[in-house]
Amino acid sequence: MANDLYLPKAEHKFSFGLWTVGNRGRDPFGDAVRPGLSPVQIVEMLGEVGAWGVNFHDNDLVPIDATPQQRDQIVRDFRKACGENGIVVPMATVNLFYDPVFRDGAFTANDSDVRAYSLQKTMKAMDLGAELGAEIFVLWGGREGAETDACRRPDEAIKRFRDAINYLCDYNSAQGYGYRFALEAKPNEPRADIYFPTTGSYLAFIETLDNPDMVGVNPEVAHEHMPGLNMTHAVAQAWEMGKLFHIDLNDQVPGRYDQDLRFGSANIKAAFWLVKFLEDVGYENPRHFDAHAYRTEDYEGVKDFARGCMRTYLILKEKARRWNENKEIKRILDEISENDRKSNVGSAGDLLNKEFDRSKLASMGLQYEKLDQLTIDILLGAD
Amino acid sequence: MANDLYLPKAEHKFSFGLWTVGNRGRDPFGDAVRPGLSPVQIVEMLGEVGAWGVNFHDNDLVPIDATPQQRDQIVRDFRKACGENGIVVPMATVNLFYDPVFRDGAFTANDSDVRAYSLQKTMKAMDLGAELGAEIFVLWGGREGAETDACRRPDEAIKRFRDAINYLCDYNSAQGYGYRFALEAKPNEPRADIYFPTTGSYLAFIETLDNPDMVGVNPEVAHEHMPGLNMTHAVAQAWEMGKLFHIDLNDQVPGRYDQDLRFGSANIKAAFWLVKFLEDVGYENPRHFDAHAYRTEDYEGVKDFARGCMRTYLILKEKARRWNENKEIKRILDEISENDRKSNVGSAGDLLNKEFDRSKLASMGLQYEKLDQLTIDILLGAD
Amino acid sequence: MANDLYLPKAEHKFSFGLWTVGNRGRDPFGDAVRPGLSPVQIVEMLGEVGAWGVNFHDNDLVPIDATPQQRDQIVRDFRKACGENGIVVPMATVNLFYDPVFRDGAFTANDSDVRAYSLQKTMKAMDLGAELGAEIFVLWGGREGAETDACRRPDEAIKRFRDAINYLCDYNSAQGYGYRFALEAKPNEPRADIYFPTTGSYLAFIETLDNPDMVGVNPEVAHEHMPGLNMTHAVAQAWEMGKLFHIDLNDQVPGRYDQDLRFGSANIKAAFWLVKFLEDVGYENPRHFDAHAYRTEDYEGVKDFARGCMRTYLILKEKARRWNENKEIKRILDEISENDRKSNVGSAGDLLNKEFDRSKLASMGLQYEKLDQLTIDILLGAD
Amino acid sequence: MANDLYLPKAEHKFSFGLWTVGNRGRDPFGDAVRPGLSPVQIVEMLGEVGAWGVNFHDNDLVPIDATPQQRDQIVRDFRKACGENGIVVPMATVNLFYDPVFRDGAFTANDSDVRAYSLQKTMKAMDLGAELGAEIFVLWGGREGAETDACRRPDEAIKRFRDAINYLCDYNSAQGYGYRFALEAKPNEPRADIYFPTTGSYLAFIETLDNPDMVGVNPEVAHEHMPGLNMTHAVAQAWEMGKLFHIDLNDQVPGRYDQDLRFGSANIKAAFWLVKFLEDVGYENPRHFDAHAYRTEDYEGVKDFARGCMRTYLILKEKARRWNENKEIKRILDEISENDRKSNVGSAGDLLNKEFDRSKLASMGLQYEKLDQLTIDILLGAD
Repeated sequence: MANDLYLPKAEHKFSFGLWTVGNRGRDPFGDAVRPGLSPVQIVEMLGEVGAWGVNFHDNDLVPIDATPQQRDQIVRDFRKACGENGIVVPMATVNLFYDPVFRDGAFTANDSDVRAYSLQKTMKAMDLGAELGAEIFVLWGGREGAETDACRRPDEAIKRFRDAINYLCDYNSAQGYGYRFALEAKPNEPRADIYFPTTGSYLAFIETLDNPDMVGVNPEVAHEHMPGLNMTHAVAQAWEMGKLFHIDLNDQVPGRYDQDLRFGSANIKAAFWLVKFLEDVGYENPRHFDAHAYRTEDYEGVKDFARGCMRTYLILKEKARRWNENKEIKRILDEISENDRKSNVGSAGDLLNKEFDRSKLASMGLQYEKLDQLTIDILLGAD
Repeated sequence: MANDLYLPKAEHKFSFGLWTVGNRGRDPFGDAVRPGLSPVQIVEMLGEVGAWGVNFHDNDLVPIDATPQQRDQIVRDFRKACGENGIVVPMATVNLFYDPVFRDGAFTANDSDVRAYSLQKTMKAMDLGAELGAEIFVLWGGREGAETDACRRPDEAIKRFRDAINYLCDYNSAQGYGYRFALEAKPNEPRADIYFPTTGSYLAFIETLDNPDMVGVNPEVAHEHMPGLNMTHAVAQAWEMGKLFHIDLNDQVPGRYDQDLRFGSANIKAAFWLVKFLEDVGYENPRHFDAHAYRTEDYEGVKDFARGCMRTYLILKEKARRWNENKEIKRILDEISENDRKSNVGSAGDLLNKEFDRSKLASMGLQYEKLDQLTIDILLGAD
Repeated sequence: MANDLYLPKAEHKFSFGLWTVGNRGRDPFGDAVRPGLSPVQIVEMLGEVGAWGVNFHDNDLVPIDATPQQRDQIVRDFRKACGENGIVVPMATVNLFYDPVFRDGAFTANDSDVRAYSLQKTMKAMDLGAELGAEIFVLWGGREGAETDACRRPDEAIKRFRDAINYLCDYNSAQGYGYRFALEAKPNEPRADIYFPTTGSYLAFIETLDNPDMVGVNPEVAHEHMPGLNMTHAVAQAWEMGKLFHIDLNDQVPGRYDQDLRFGSANIKAAFWLVKFLEDVGYENPRHFDAHAYRTEDYEGVKDFARGCMRTYLILKEKARRWNENKEIKRILDEISENDRKSNVGSAGDLLNKEFDRSKLASMGLQYEKLDQLTIDILLGAD
Repeated sequence: MANDLYLPKAEHKFSFGLWTVGNRGRDPFGDAVRPGLSPVQIVEMLGEVGAWGVNFHDNDLVPIDATPQQRDQIVRDFRKACGENGIVVPMATVNLFYDPVFRDGAFTANDSDVRAYSLQKTMKAMDLGAELGAEIFVLWGGREGAETDACRRPDEAIKRFRDAINYLCDYNSAQGYGYRFALEAKPNEPRADIYFPTTGSYLAFIETLDNPDMVGVNPEVAHEHMPGLNMTHAVAQAWEMGKLFHIDLNDQVPGRYDQDLRFGSANIKAAFWLVKFLEDVGYENPRHFDAHAYRTEDYEGVKDFARGCMRTYLILKEKARRWNENKEIKRILDEISENDRKSNVGSAGDLLNKEFDRSKLASMGLQYEKLDQLTIDILLGAD
């Protein structure tokens, strides 16, 4: 029965990008280690491992130089494969980073033709995604940054980025696509500094758009962990603002190159708090695994990787349930809440006259070490 | 004449906190190395080194256990010293971190009495600051965080923090203080994770307040550098949103404990881009040095430290001027701008039909290595 | 029975420093939150929670200004308390960082009198440790570093440090103490850069001593994690060189201030590989927990903290056993070993003429994703 | 005249790898942006910018699948180009990371055939280097690491690596090549954890070899900066042990992906201390720039990059001279030295009886803030 609990089902909304299980293992110092798979083959693999959805960048599906005829054939084949394998397309995105044309940025590039081309490419990617049923459109501005701040003023980059998003929101409305855009932050790599480095930066930026309601965020575990930030805190801020439109699950050790490790494989505890938060608040958008298998793997190993992402999520979900029902944890949380029920703060006049016993307020043990050890016990199955 | 350029004047609005030049050099592994100075002595030192302003936490000036009579005498003495030394009080803040009562947070603590006490303490600090002429009120929530996310849900912490800021904004209005609040982010230390870890997080939070116009940010170099972020980018986003109410200048190597080094002493180039941005956009709020001298120094060394902060700022300001006037830099920037003058993006329909020559757009050398080396030459005085 | 497995026994050699469970919770931004305990009270607490040993810096036990009479009384009381609580003293060390005299370093300070005083203080700490039965003497050079490399040449610092260690080894021999010295590396904090930043640096340094056999290392989890290094790899190198004389167990998120968290509470997987390595190789020196409780705790919480360190170690030890006996893991490791049994490399002449099929060697899936997921399953109790 | 000072000459021993100025700008998220150059074209470029030497991995020069005839023709052409352009070959190395065969490591791979192939490939690279006059052979074990420590015990990896180096030393002796091996450490990327993560680790390892005299280190700025360590301290330890056989100069912000930036372009002050150390101690081995140009550059920009590396080195060298001759710096250093001339430490018996005035020793201001600000002044040309 425990095993059954840990098998993926459609209701879990587990999705993978074509670029994740289809990743060939190229890295900055090494060549591809796995042969290429067609989108159809990838969809079949996702069906086999039990995923619910597949996402893509435009060029994961349709090569950048494809003719319209080739494009249409690819879309037909892909749609058919999705149908046959019970896979949906919840999200689409656009590749604005691989081609050399983007070496100076896409929406923020100094060359206005590059900016215009980036818009055009994104609009076509939106067409493609809509055609396949995607309702969320992710934008990761991986090249929107700089190696030297001599090249442009950062506030100019922000303005250019705003113009682009406003333009795309208008296109979304005009076409009636109904997309919700999800902006994905990252602090660095492949640029030395990317302009919107954290989920917080994007949440602030969104409020300055013409249509802020249409735009939210896509926080990624690895991207928040790279600068050593707490992913669950970033997700909580986005959630509390009603902006958690999508999420990228993977793993990463802080202070390193972008690792995109199997979900939960590096920081078990951080993964637990994240899963617990998503389940506690009732997050209902896709759970997207934006990760890839080690270079030591063949495609059987890639399946192990994909299954592991989902399995670990489900194990942690079950642990979140146990945590919420643990009697000792409940007792401690209840004691904490008691201190929280004392009184309202009242008017400023009343408050200024109130006397507080600092020393007494500081003296009670808060039992957080016990709370945390109980969490560790649950995680290790020693509860 | 060059030397004269590098001497601080009132127009530069250089300020120091009482806690900066008055810092006694205590650290997690070592005791204080310098004797304590009274606020009056610190103001005299600031006058001697040529500073314009002095800032304080409530308890830097008035001990937490002072009687009202003691408080009033301290304020009188301090005001007199400021007057005699030509020092103004541009900013005040509140210490919500030193006393054990704040070990679980201040505005976000689980105990509602701690939260109420924190509000009361802040209101009194506002009274104190207003009495001495401060127009900016900084809030650094150094204890608003957690070692284990078992202790509270992070979205609950955000709500509590919002309630507190709204309450304080109301008090500000009711008292007619006219403060602008400046929120100061930090990712960690002294808590494992602080809830609003970056300037971006606070910029996003501010939009959710009842009176967003009354609240801005106080970015600190060290706090953005700790997680390896680009301070100038954070400042640019705040500036572009009209939220750069204050700034904390110091220095810090990424990925370490909070160092609070002399401004410009660790990352010369990062300091240069920051100074250049502030000067180019015409930033007119205080330039506050939130740093302290090495533990190897006596108070003569502390003066060297304070003078060095201001001197380096002024040297970099002069270099920013040289950068802006450098002919080769101008030529390159002009060539870049040429590519930016091509055309407007036009309507979606037109844009979709436009043909772009990707390969041609990707082929031109952008001369950023030269631009950056010219910057290095200017910094090193080899231009 | 499982519960019994996780209770500490003398055979586990779990020790705590006086400064760990006796830590009062002072930090760079906050005051002490717990009242001070006497060494005797700490020993009683260690007895209560089931520890085996207690370690101390000279001044944890004997205040720096104690008279010889006071010292002797303290030692008598402490020895008695150890006896009554069944606690041994496996290790002693010296505090060369708290007093302002060490602000420029101890053995590497520019002032030769500071260097001489540091030697004297260490010798007296050795006397004290020997009197109480310590067989290991740890040296953490927390102040041996710099904020600016202007202050001395780093190779000069190395020479001074070598002179000091050679001198202390001679004293060890002359007194017949039989100590094994264990050098403890740390990259930064409280100095901007500490001269021997990693365990590797000390392992290299030891070979240059007059008596390298007398000196080994004391790797600390937090100190290797701070710069993002793999603690188990550092420990493995020390072990393989016969230099793992002691170990400091705690936890730490990379790229931050020194956190000294409860063992296994931040990086469960890293803690697992470490415990597994120590148990697999048969490490028999003390397992010292160099950590402290959160500031939110009273002394009941400190006991929770101490019990949690030992409990998590024992749970992970049991998981290491399960890992070693897991059939699927065994099968995969066996397949890997098969590829390792092919042949010897032979002579250079033979090897140069051998033909290798690169493509074939690169094609086999190595099953590391599965191996790692099986590890996660075991850690989560889902095996 | 100043300009002349900053032009590279043969005596400076500035070298570049074929892979540095020949780098085509591929990165994990983007395609190559520059057309490929032949080794001969690269040598011509190096001649044009004024370099002294060129280094190569075997496959930078000879493709991995070249026939012996092709190889010999390539070598002839390359040697001719070197002669015509006045370029020498001081160092050679071997590529044990790009081909998929190395995905699990080279000398430490689990498959003994991969290990044997790696030795063979290295021996042939040694033949190639020797044929072209190289006297230093660098080994960077970029793939010698792991994503999961489940795959092998780290001490086993160390043993395998030792066997390999011993084997190669024997080959070096047998062939009479007279190489000095220089081992290059890196903490991570492209593996999650590389086995010898810092220069210190290799310095320790070298002592355990059969022929330690034949082996030294090749510290790289970026690789020490990635984990936030002080490059000059690592270099100083290597130098003091007589092991600084080679050096890789570039730049890098801590806590990020491997950036390989233009020397001195990110951390001016760190670069200064490094240049000052190398010049002060009389380092005479090659000064190798292991960096590459931004992706925004064409080959004119690559030349700007290469010239910038050398120019910044020479500017900093001149500043080191000024630093050494600065009167105020001399005065302070002299005062520091005075405190260092007091007395010898004497016998243990004498030392134990000596009285020290801690408070007096702690009271003198050490003027390090001034010393550091004078350094900043010199760096900024404001001295």
